[in-house]
Amino acid sequence: MFEMEPVGHVRGGRAAAVDDDWGKSRPRIDLDAARFTPEALAGLDTFSHAEIIFVFDKVTDDEIVTGARHPRGNTDWPKIGIFAQRGKNRPNRIGLCTARIVAVNGLSVELEGLDAIDGTPVLDIKPVMSGFRPRGAIGEPQWAKEIMKDYW
Amino acid sequence: MFEMEPVGHVRGGRAAAVDDDWGKSRPRIDLDAARFTPEALAGLDTFSHAEIIFVFDKVTDDEIVTGARHPRGNTDWPKIGIFAQRGKNRPNRIGLCTARIVAVNGLSVELEGLDAIDGTPVLDIKPVMSGFRPRGAIGEPQWAKEIMKDYW
Repeated sequence: MFEMEPVGHVRGGRAAAVDDDWGKSRPRIDLDAARFTPEALAGLDTFSHAEIIFVFDKVTDDEIVTGARHPRGNTDWPKIGIFAQRGKNRPNRIGLCTARIVAVNGLSVELEGLDAIDGTPVLDIKPVMSGFRPRGAIGEPQWAKEIMKDYW
Repeated sequence: MFEMEPVGHVRGGRAAAVDDDWGKSRPRIDLDAARFTPEALAGLDTFSHAEIIFVFDKVTDDEIVTGARHPRGNTDWPKIGIFAQRGKNRPNRIGLCTARIVAVNGLSVELEGLDAIDGTPVLDIKPVMSGFRPRGAIGEPQWAKEIMKDYW
């Protein structure tokens, strides 16, 4: 087992987890002022995007899926394993989103298009480097395109 | 604090963490057979790539950086905050890599280009969906391009 302490929290943005329309959400992440100084974010403003790793902390233990389910409960889509979808009811309850960096001020990072709600514990922030993008063309099933139609 | 239990481990591939030449590494991830069945991976083979979230478990507490440092210790590059680089000596020691899915067999996922060593604990596997790619052009500083030159 690994103990993870949040490095900060999402502040602002949306108050409730909804399925769609995350694109205009403009929350910030405030680093924990007891452990970090602005040095921890030095240079982040020279990147356009960051990957945010966070915890879906509203998900309770009994909601976690370890097998397969229909994405969003939609039976028009096939039953898909929890590790072949990005739903929040997953082991370790880890969320991951690439968001645009709007500004970095002191211990705060302002972001656009982060699909995490106000108060969400953040485990890590990583800059998006073009060299870490998928190598080769991306292939995905039809349901994965349909599910993203109104997401941003 | 959040307790995270590995969902599986990296098996095979490289035995030691080195800076470059990860592209041909072909490890697999074996899910924990005590907790999962192949259902957890159902449909993963319909995606080309997966994002793997893992723990840099060889990093000791005293090696963790909370401020800024030169990436790879290279003083040709600027001092950069730990959350503006992807080095392993970071709070929560979380690694994140996009790898190509070669095959899915039972509880195993064979991957190409995963920058995690044999034995690494895995916290999550997520399919890469084109809708989750960065929205807008990627901007990054020059050092971030140079550091990736021989990485894959």
